[in-house]
Amino acid sequence: MENPENPKQVGRRSFLKGGLMGGVALAGAATAGKAMAAGDPLITEVQDWNRYLGDGVDANPYGTPSQFEAHVVRKNVPWLTSDAISSINFTPLHALDGIITPNGLCFERHHGGVAVIEPTAHRLMINGLVDKPLVFTMDDLKRFPRENKVYFLECAANSGMEWRGAQLNGCQFTHGMLHCVMYTGVPLRTILAEAGVKTEGRWLLAEGADASAMTRSIPMEKALDDCLVAFGMNGEALRAEQGYPLRLVVPGWEGNMWVKWLRRLEVGDKPWQQREETSKYTDLLPDGKSRRFTWAMDVKSVITNPSPQAPIKHGKGPLVLSGLAWSGQGTIKRVDVTLDGGRNWHTARLDGPSLPKALHRFYYEFDWDGSELFLQSRAIDEQGFIQPTKDQLRSVRGSNSIYHNNGIQTWYVNKDGGIENVEIS
Amino acid sequence: MENPENPKQVGRRSFLKGGLMGGVALAGAATAGKAMAAGDPLITEVQDWNRYLGDGVDANPYGTPSQFEAHVVRKNVPWLTSDAISSINFTPLHALDGIITPNGLCFERHHGGVAVIEPTAHRLMINGLVDKPLVFTMDDLKRFPRENKVYFLECAANSGMEWRGAQLNGCQFTHGMLHCVMYTGVPLRTILAEAGVKTEGRWLLAEGADASAMTRSIPMEKALDDCLVAFGMNGEALRAEQGYPLRLVVPGWEGNMWVKWLRRLEVGDKPWQQREETSKYTDLLPDGKSRRFTWAMDVKSVITNPSPQAPIKHGKGPLVLSGLAWSGQGTIKRVDVTLDGGRNWHTARLDGPSLPKALHRFYYEFDWDGSELFLQSRAIDEQGFIQPTKDQLRSVRGSNSIYHNNGIQTWYVNKDGGIENVEIS
Repeated sequence: MENPENPKQVGRRSFLKGGLMGGVALAGAATAGKAMAAGDPLITEVQDWNRYLGDGVDANPYGTPSQFEAHVVRKNVPWLTSDAISSINFTPLHALDGIITPNGLCFERHHGGVAVIEPTAHRLMINGLVDKPLVFTMDDLKRFPRENKVYFLECAANSGMEWRGAQLNGCQFTHGMLHCVMYTGVPLRTILAEAGVKTEGRWLLAEGADASAMTRSIPMEKALDDCLVAFGMNGEALRAEQGYPLRLVVPGWEGNMWVKWLRRLEVGDKPWQQREETSKYTDLLPDGKSRRFTWAMDVKSVITNPSPQAPIKHGKGPLVLSGLAWSGQGTIKRVDVTLDGGRNWHTARLDGPSLPKALHRFYYEFDWDGSELFLQSRAIDEQGFIQPTKDQLRSVRGSNSIYHNNGIQTWYVNKDGGIENVEIS
Repeated sequence: MENPENPKQVGRRSFLKGGLMGGVALAGAATAGKAMAAGDPLITEVQDWNRYLGDGVDANPYGTPSQFEAHVVRKNVPWLTSDAISSINFTPLHALDGIITPNGLCFERHHGGVAVIEPTAHRLMINGLVDKPLVFTMDDLKRFPRENKVYFLECAANSGMEWRGAQLNGCQFTHGMLHCVMYTGVPLRTILAEAGVKTEGRWLLAEGADASAMTRSIPMEKALDDCLVAFGMNGEALRAEQGYPLRLVVPGWEGNMWVKWLRRLEVGDKPWQQREETSKYTDLLPDGKSRRFTWAMDVKSVITNPSPQAPIKHGKGPLVLSGLAWSGQGTIKRVDVTLDGGRNWHTARLDGPSLPKALHRFYYEFDWDGSELFLQSRAIDEQGFIQPTKDQLRSVRGSNSIYHNNGIQTWYVNKDGGIENVEIS
């Protein structure tokens, strides 16, 4: 954070370690404030930002983050994919709080790059086993009653590297194929009703307009339940990399099914067995067979702070541990946290709105005594599903899988507050 | 929306009016889709975005909106203020949906420009009638238990021009000093408890570190209730123009009290009577006296679509009317909508989470017959407060006020779908 090129910046160490503020710890374990020091120039002297007028309102009609937050960005892992087009970048979970992900930090996963589609040139077709094949413009779609719902989106491959042991050092990389926004869109069942699904129509094919022409089969039961044909996220239009102008929202189910740049919905009587639901997005079991149609994202959680990219810098004393929990089955009922690798569990505090199939924020505040820690969190959803350990998962599914790893994550904290991704048995 | 310089763009009129899609209106009043036409090249031909790979994930680590949404920006009204530093820009409410405002579109109001403060150089002091004066660094504050809450923020001067009649043509300008985000911060009562408020401490002065050194008096009752010392909005750090790295959140109360770049909290035994609570942010009554301490933002609503900046372009038939409602007293219980200037009222559909002191989204779907409309919305909050007409407000407060105009807004819709801000009696 320290920028030697900025002469206005006051070195932080000189204050906290040099004793200018006196370093007088006040009584009480929860105390984090310092007694006022007469000589602190940040208190006694008028600072530049108080002395001179700042910039006005005109410079930046669409605002961007503070210059001091330039490190809070999506990041990719170059060796993870062979090129940048069919690739991934990750949400910086360690730098975020609450349950809403800003649109500019929502992870991206593309199979053919970002399609750039002028919205008046976009069409959504519905065909197949319907009474009336239809074509909708974006303007057409915006004439149907719409809904606003907060949902998490998790890539099926999130935490996928961890099947073979602790590998990536930071929750941005182990768990950052995850975001949560408020979507605005038309219920899919409204569109289907408009076309009229024939009695034998039991499956839906969703197809994207991008260069990968992403295609996934969705059972009619889900399509008629809570799916949305969405054009908005967090109040504004979808971002290009999230499928502008139109994407499918399939709440609680794996991200790959949330087809971006949605251009076609075909009603059929059986699944299509497309590439992305046969050779990909299936889990290879030890006996050589694959699990098929593993759609729902199971109950899961991760501690986002402290974590490898956000080590403990303040030493002993009061510490805010925080993290995220979610379940494709509904709301989160409880999150437990352990500091000693599972010997003792503590109930975390859930904070903020508890919405089905949305992220939940949890906190556990404690006094760190400076000793080594093995941090874990374990979520339990409203259906009673409990997040398993990685070993429990492997005992059932082996370690050939890429997808659907909802195992408990362990962070090792050393005595200096440095943190690593580890596995313990 | 049509861009003649983009050769890839297919003219929209040629399809909708030229009949290539057949223009076959299907049965049923709610039908907005068109029957499929064999000759539509947008359906039958492979488009560029489907033929060629798009950009990969690396180009833009902090994402920005689609190039086709460049018109969705905050805007100022140059003649409204004498310069751009002590000025305002407005949230484009007509282009948004749901209840979350993206951080880049949250309106700005500055009294001394945007302070640029390196977070490690920021301090929050608490002094006055406390047992222990304290100074906190940002790192200190982040060691206290925190909360995440969705709140609207409305400038007291929002709709202020309307006291003297319909003047600004668009809800961005009449109602756009309004946004709603999820804040992350430490309850103010936690900070006050840390310092220990003396028995005679009944008021709190909040002071900003910017060039205007914004200062406001807040009664202790409110300070101990639901105020936050906030460092996050919509998951990430506060934006610079919203007070980075620290602002006060005063839920339901006028935006001016939400002191940005918060550097000092002083506990006292009476209000300070600062400029911004005496000559400003008071309402001048017809008898020459001013209303004092008008903190809460009263129940209010506005139709955001259709509205002057978002006219009806699709002609007769199904129309989605949408808007926002909010109250500083809590949640919204009901919103009524009229199409004929108040002769007949219809209950609107509230959609999305209903959170206290947060925006609420409402919809009213109807079939437009192409006739003139006088659109109004009227909100009722959980305390039973009903949004008044502008005339009702003026009968009590005259028309010298600038602040706290929560009167019912009227949009006149002509037969072509064009819309104007009007007043009717």
